[in-house]
Amino acid sequence: MTPLPFTVAEFEDRLARVRQAMAEQSLDLLILSDPCNFYYLSGYEAWSFYVQQYLLVSLDAERPIWLGREMDARGAGLTTWLDAADIHTYPDSYVQSADRHPAQFLARFLEARGWDKGRIGVESQSYYLTAKTQKLLEAELPNAAIHDASLLVNWARAVKSPAEIEYMRQAARIVEQAMATAIQHTRPGVRQCDVAGEIYRALMQGTPEYGGQYASSPPFMPSGDRVDTPHLSWTDAPYAQSGQANFELVGCRHRYHTQLSRTVALGKPSQTLLDLEKASLDAIAAALDAVRPGATAADIEAAWSRAAARHGVRKAARVGYAVGIAYPPTVGEQTISLRPEDHTVLQEGMTFHLMPAVWQEGASIVITEPFVVTATGAETFCRFERRLFSTD
Amino acid sequence: MTPLPFTVAEFEDRLARVRQAMAEQSLDLLILSDPCNFYYLSGYEAWSFYVQQYLLVSLDAERPIWLGREMDARGAGLTTWLDAADIHTYPDSYVQSADRHPAQFLARFLEARGWDKGRIGVESQSYYLTAKTQKLLEAELPNAAIHDASLLVNWARAVKSPAEIEYMRQAARIVEQAMATAIQHTRPGVRQCDVAGEIYRALMQGTPEYGGQYASSPPFMPSGDRVDTPHLSWTDAPYAQSGQANFELVGCRHRYHTQLSRTVALGKPSQTLLDLEKASLDAIAAALDAVRPGATAADIEAAWSRAAARHGVRKAARVGYAVGIAYPPTVGEQTISLRPEDHTVLQEGMTFHLMPAVWQEGASIVITEPFVVTATGAETFCRFERRLFSTD
Repeated sequence: MTPLPFTVAEFEDRLARVRQAMAEQSLDLLILSDPCNFYYLSGYEAWSFYVQQYLLVSLDAERPIWLGREMDARGAGLTTWLDAADIHTYPDSYVQSADRHPAQFLARFLEARGWDKGRIGVESQSYYLTAKTQKLLEAELPNAAIHDASLLVNWARAVKSPAEIEYMRQAARIVEQAMATAIQHTRPGVRQCDVAGEIYRALMQGTPEYGGQYASSPPFMPSGDRVDTPHLSWTDAPYAQSGQANFELVGCRHRYHTQLSRTVALGKPSQTLLDLEKASLDAIAAALDAVRPGATAADIEAAWSRAAARHGVRKAARVGYAVGIAYPPTVGEQTISLRPEDHTVLQEGMTFHLMPAVWQEGASIVITEPFVVTATGAETFCRFERRLFSTD
Repeated sequence: MTPLPFTVAEFEDRLARVRQAMAEQSLDLLILSDPCNFYYLSGYEAWSFYVQQYLLVSLDAERPIWLGREMDARGAGLTTWLDAADIHTYPDSYVQSADRHPAQFLARFLEARGWDKGRIGVESQSYYLTAKTQKLLEAELPNAAIHDASLLVNWARAVKSPAEIEYMRQAARIVEQAMATAIQHTRPGVRQCDVAGEIYRALMQGTPEYGGQYASSPPFMPSGDRVDTPHLSWTDAPYAQSGQANFELVGCRHRYHTQLSRTVALGKPSQTLLDLEKASLDAIAAALDAVRPGATAADIEAAWSRAAARHGVRKAARVGYAVGIAYPPTVGEQTISLRPEDHTVLQEGMTFHLMPAVWQEGASIVITEPFVVTATGAETFCRFERRLFSTD
């Protein structure tokens, strides 16, 4: 038995909060598809979300019900706090089949329990539900009203417990190691893919006390003519004699993610890069200074934007987002964004990645800081020099 | 400009085949969401699929149209064969917003081009469409008939060109290196996460000629009480003095994936493991022997099952699936499965992962072979000893 990452009491508390949110939305049943929400409520931890699987939260069952592919049931037994009786499977012939679909199996399963009536919530915006599944559920459950309950559990995850914050601190230790490794190995003439290999090794090997896990996204590390663009990874090409290399890295511990980004100048930094560094450091300090319980997401963005504008720097995109548990493809919780339109009030224990990277034609600066909202301000997770680095 | 992984002529040929399939389904427009299909038709290669993005294939536009998030447009310019005029964006305020959705932007975009009529195909079974998007498109495009065109492009990808097969051979060289590294580092007392780090390094550093890329899934490498379960990764625990460690690894080159799996006995292999090895090797040889153009997917499974049954071994799940381009979360093409219900006829140039792992209570064997269908049989991609390994 793999040790549970949290106490059963913590899982029960999470479940109680989700049930309360369900009651507020008059939901009788919640069908979850997001693997982050499987993990949050049950502890389930396997790379099986590429097939259909469902975690059912009913107002009248003591624990969630796991329904997935036959071969994955053992993994559910090993990694969750569920009883054997809570774990159910559909046959392998339902996997990626042209003539049958797991949603049909689910519909029969719900009927057998009398759960095919009332108001049923599904995650219509989750990657792992699919449009086909929702259509089938609507067709096969004529007595139920299918309701979009996307992000219901994500919102319940927003304020972190001390145990969750501790995992994010451990993930910070891991990503600091990886960033130090990246900076150490990045030199003109070294292949980008070789540096990527060293970074991955550091991310998995972690510290002597604990290792890392696969993260929700790969290292982003564009260089050369790719540095004005986010979301690109490495190439086989060697680093050039000049220009820059960006590193957006993610450490993962028990599925909790902590990110860290830094830019490395290849050789002597250009004046553009030095100017961007100054703007970035000022604006990050201003944003962190604005963090406190009661401030809004928009307030943090405004603080960043005001300080950046003094340097002539603007950013059209959000400057950060809520983080915690993640599975591919996204590291964000998809709830709170640090941007002008988001008036969510910050609370103690909320965790964010302040990610105010600036991409401009031919240059960029990526200096970022993950943080937790404390009783009085922001505590950054990482202890890593906040500056532009250089190979010189 | 990042060099294109294929000639423009090859992209044009792919597009022509997709257009023909569209015509057969009377589709006027195809809205793609699967990043594999973005890559196949345009070359687009970035980790941006966690936000909504659409590749539009019209019967009357020369090239596909890319519509995505503002910050990702540069990546589309850098990595595709599209013209600047083919690349369009929606503002960042549409990302994960409670009050607006990129599908609404898409609907207005289609109206402006007169593409909001007729029969429009969407990928209802893609992870990256979402149920919400399809519902919005149905509501916002009253003059169109939205049709499930899932897997239309996936099927067009089934037979590989010589250039594609060459990338899969290169991915094979990478995964062989990684498997050799895994076997070399796996020893009782060594932490599993440390071996994971070495494997990742090998997967990215590749060969002196070319490096690797992030794959569609992490290494699966259960050990201890987790070996009877697929889809689990490593832990922080050291390898035990006895038992086994499984490795399911994936090499990736230009988004083409080649897998390789082997089991390593910790210390002297048990008789159970030796028996499983014999069954596995016999059945794999029988399955590969059955491969030829004209045989069906079911025939390959039947050959495997007959040979395995002689050893008293059965497998309820499919024994393989079509492979090629992949992005998380799945390495398979979601088209052909090697199983009794699948009567697809094999053709020269189709590529598969023969993945007949056997998981039993407390033990398992994972020995797998990726292969391409040739004019006369099967050519396995990897040159790696097909046997049970041992730390002894």
